[in-house]
Amino acid sequence: MEMWFSDEHTEDVKLSIRIKEQLFSAQSEFQRIDVLDSREFGRILVADGDLMLTEKDEFIYHEMITHVPMAVHPHVEDVLVIGGGDGGVVRELIKYEEIRHIDVVEMDPLLVEVCRKYIPEIACSLNDERVEIFHEDGLRFIRSQTDRYDLIIIDSPNPFGPGEGLFTKEFYGNCYNALREDGIMVNQNESPFYTEEAFQCQRMHKRIVETFPICRVYQAHLPSYPSGHWLFGFASKKYHPLEDLNAVAWKLKGIRTRYYEPRLHAGVFALPVYVEELLEDVE
Amino acid sequence: MEMWFSDEHTEDVKLSIRIKEQLFSAQSEFQRIDVLDSREFGRILVADGDLMLTEKDEFIYHEMITHVPMAVHPHVEDVLVIGGGDGGVVRELIKYEEIRHIDVVEMDPLLVEVCRKYIPEIACSLNDERVEIFHEDGLRFIRSQTDRYDLIIIDSPNPFGPGEGLFTKEFYGNCYNALREDGIMVNQNESPFYTEEAFQCQRMHKRIVETFPICRVYQAHLPSYPSGHWLFGFASKKYHPLEDLNAVAWKLKGIRTRYYEPRLHAGVFALPVYVEELLEDVE
Repeated sequence: MEMWFSDEHTEDVKLSIRIKEQLFSAQSEFQRIDVLDSREFGRILVADGDLMLTEKDEFIYHEMITHVPMAVHPHVEDVLVIGGGDGGVVRELIKYEEIRHIDVVEMDPLLVEVCRKYIPEIACSLNDERVEIFHEDGLRFIRSQTDRYDLIIIDSPNPFGPGEGLFTKEFYGNCYNALREDGIMVNQNESPFYTEEAFQCQRMHKRIVETFPICRVYQAHLPSYPSGHWLFGFASKKYHPLEDLNAVAWKLKGIRTRYYEPRLHAGVFALPVYVEELLEDVE
Repeated sequence: MEMWFSDEHTEDVKLSIRIKEQLFSAQSEFQRIDVLDSREFGRILVADGDLMLTEKDEFIYHEMITHVPMAVHPHVEDVLVIGGGDGGVVRELIKYEEIRHIDVVEMDPLLVEVCRKYIPEIACSLNDERVEIFHEDGLRFIRSQTDRYDLIIIDSPNPFGPGEGLFTKEFYGNCYNALREDGIMVNQNESPFYTEEAFQCQRMHKRIVETFPICRVYQAHLPSYPSGHWLFGFASKKYHPLEDLNAVAWKLKGIRTRYYEPRLHAGVFALPVYVEELLEDVE
């Protein structure tokens, strides 16, 4: 028997992965959650039919959304992760001894339990004693926070469906207020390639530029995501993403990675001409 | 009616693109050639069922394989393109006034004619008076050349099928001999992500490292190719890909591009940790 899972990248493009077995499927209060097993990508987490992560390449996304700001900010103690119920971002964060508290705001408790069971090598990070999980709406959670975090990581799926509120100007303003005076916010910023996503990417960047004094976009090669060219937003109150990189300090921590290295820090901010033009239009 | 073209990335992964119309299909002496039309990628050139180029993102591949060496070598006059019957590489090369002669060795005359007819905005470059086309086997053509080119661009499809000979150590040795004493060779070097391609990528790099004194690999975000993470090999007798970049000289030429810019030159050589490890294994 042949079984294929197809992730729709646009109405006219899809990536299909041969599936060995469907390991789990259920409807939570918020979304349908599936776990599939594949030979090429290992286990695959799917939400409402969209590919969320694969065991083969999740390290790229999670390393890039975490270590880029961590190599810039000189001393992160308190971190907020919005989304991130799979534990991937937290797995990278707990490699830093100086971090003393991580709040994870993941709306869907079923998602966390499914990840604990089916991708334990990622989700077991959530058991770290510094981690506190809140099953709340991120938009509501952030409203009541002021001057509290050094780093906020917005690990939200996409600007449609339940996470929609996490892409509004109000939300980014609340993140700004929740950060300390030298805080950094990083968000997944979609892909610049397909027309519909490029528009989302531009809109997100516009709203962040209107909120933070320092904003730069960086990129990674992420094969399982649409177009494989994925962007992240770096928004900051004080630190510059390139000028304030402290490569030596980061290397001294002895953190093991498979994608990120300070050696490629500047390169990931050097965007292709067509991407620069897309973003400049709203700057 | 729904019509989809699927490009097999591995046995277990495929990218599918909705097709508006099949514009052309024929078997040449060497391969089956198809031209498809799609909404998302525009026209698509397919050889033996494999996606060769799409109108939407061919600029990324052709700019990156051409302008990276051209921004390093101080004075390129004679160029050899192996493969490249679609005219994409030549379109980028003829932007340089200092280039006086371009030999294109494309085995399959039908491919050239199909491109002239169906993707004329790319293939019309082949009409430039500096271009000479040879319908020969690249491996045989190069054997008789010595000390003749400043730049060789190996725009070969992949290490299977008719182009197989273009990936051997003998071939790279012949390219070395065909280059002048400060010549540069650039090749498409496959993707590092999927296991089978990563192996090809490693093998190619090994053979080039054994032939040229200076070898570095660089990358681009190429959405229509497997994994979207595409590598190129930069092999050189004298010039270093980073130290000998002359960004000012390149900018002064006033060449318009949509992906490459000297601003991102260093960044494209900064490979992710797992790719560096893959290549270091054979260095």
